Amino acid sequence: MKRIGFIGLGIMGKPMARNLLAAGYPLAVYDIVPAAMETVVAAGATAAASSREVAAQSDVVITMLPNSPEVRQAVLGEDGVLAGARPGLILIDMSSIAPLASREIAEAAAARGVRMLDAPVSGGEPKAIQGTLAIMAGGPQDVFDEVKDILGKMGSSVTRVGDIGSGNVAKLANQMIVALNIAAMSEAMVLATKAGVDPKKVFEAIRGGLAGSTVLEAKMPLVLAGNFKPGFRIELHIKDLMNALDTAHAIGVPVPLSSGVLEILQALKVGGKGGDDHGGIVQFYEDLARIRVREH
Amino acid sequence: MKRIGFIGLGIMGKPMARNLLAAGYPLAVYDIVPAAMETVVAAGATAAASSREVAAQSDVVITMLPNSPEVRQAVLGEDGVLAGARPGLILIDMSSIAPLASREIAEAAAARGVRMLDAPVSGGEPKAIQGTLAIMAGGPQDVFDEVKDILGKMGSSVTRVGDIGSGNVAKLANQMIVALNIAAMSEAMVLATKAGVDPKKVFEAIRGGLAGSTVLEAKMPLVLAGNFKPGFRIELHIKDLMNALDTAHAIGVPVPLSSGVLEILQALKVGGKGGDDHGGIVQFYEDLARIRVREH
Repeated sequence: MKRIGFIGLGIMGKPMARNLLAAGYPLAVYDIVPAAMETVVAAGATAAASSREVAAQSDVVITMLPNSPEVRQAVLGEDGVLAGARPGLILIDMSSIAPLASREIAEAAAARGVRMLDAPVSGGEPKAIQGTLAIMAGGPQDVFDEVKDILGKMGSSVTRVGDIGSGNVAKLANQMIVALNIAAMSEAMVLATKAGVDPKKVFEAIRGGLAGSTVLEAKMPLVLAGNFKPGFRIELHIKDLMNALDTAHAIGVPVPLSSGVLEILQALKVGGKGGDDHGGIVQFYEDLARIRVREH
Repeated sequence: MKRIGFIGLGIMGKPMARNLLAAGYPLAVYDIVPAAMETVVAAGATAAASSREVAAQSDVVITMLPNSPEVRQAVLGEDGVLAGARPGLILIDMSSIAPLASREIAEAAAARGVRMLDAPVSGGEPKAIQGTLAIMAGGPQDVFDEVKDILGKMGSSVTRVGDIGSGNVAKLANQMIVALNIAAMSEAMVLATKAGVDPKKVFEAIRGGLAGSTVLEAKMPLVLAGNFKPGFRIELHIKDLMNALDTAHAIGVPVPLSSGVLEILQALKVGGKGGDDHGGIVQFYEDLARIRVREH
């Protein structure tokens, strides 16, 4: 059984690590916040003093960190994964970061004999706890095959999308569509409400047709209830869209609507709503139109 | 059994009228293009010489016309419905027009004792033929109840959304969401493709999550096949979004993303693609990024 290292025990990393422990894998963990390791260590993991130490005692190292700079630091830094890794180690970065950063980190890893996948997830904390995340992986097929069982302990859908960086490309595509679908719902429903029509009736009239979506089904009831407790925070969606725009600019693809919805998210953050669920995008329109989309 | 009049026998009106004939209703019809009446008359309808003549021999008059000006002309014009209507007649405007126009026309109708619903549809020609349109109605409950059976011959989902104009408000909300969901899919998939990832794999990886939608399921296979045969034409979606923007401006709701996607549709029309299906929005991005989203 492979020895696994896990770096980054935040809201997502902690339950993912616990699911690996529950599956019987020997687990070494590290987080820059020592207290973050406590519950996982209590559940049987070994605390390490650095990412380097995690790598030194692992066959597979998983990173689950906020963004590209943190992954670079944890992998390429002085006390990072590559400093402690033996040749042949597999690094799985499950963070959501810029795809171009994934490719650069993979090149540096390859120079040290370390093989890498990028494998970001979607689904949020509840699915991390249940082990039912959707995992989108990029990297060589043989490396993917070697760790597919491990990924299967954290996710119910594990898809190899393509080469290194592809997982994060799929994740960015996902996040662009989700943000825009929420904004579309919001723009339409504030218009309908201000026009004097019950938004719940509009929802009922259109949900079964071409306007139907998972976003509409998941978020419209929360919008009607005025419930913007996260869920997935607006400030995290800003990070993903910033990575999408950076990628788009680097490779030459215009993304005018993603750019527009990013500005809306930024406006909400400036207004103190960065910690709200991304369903709270509706508040941008509600505030400007001076009306609330609520059940009549 | 109520005598029905039907004005506007285009791509949608013709099969809708035929379904009413098939249900046994006596039907008088009118279209400014005499040839448009031929097949419906052959199926048993009576051809009239004007909208006024249609009204004179009907208990219920249905209009199915391109936009607000055509409905105003057919209802309020010298030879229009109101000129021929007896008090108590019910006018059902099933065109997709500006909600404020519906309200104005209903006021003029009320002054002549004519009761009115706005009842736009979604679903396109195939569902018009099958009689399975989604019908979103606005107007008094008692008027709706009186003609609900008639509407049920043309649609499988018949919903009263609220007062007069509400049907068109729901339709505009529907069209805003559909256009933006298609654009979101397009922006994301062109980005993924240009980043070197197979768009079909991205589709498979994200369709089951929060990015899933009816648009993604219906349009992504056509985008992958490069098939933009309508379906619902870009130039018709432009009309609907123009009505959405007019409404938004009139009542004070900002719609920055709908405005953005309208510009994209206008660019496609200028480029000669106004007759393509709205799934062809992807071509705006493909042309600029110099890549095609196609199955690898």
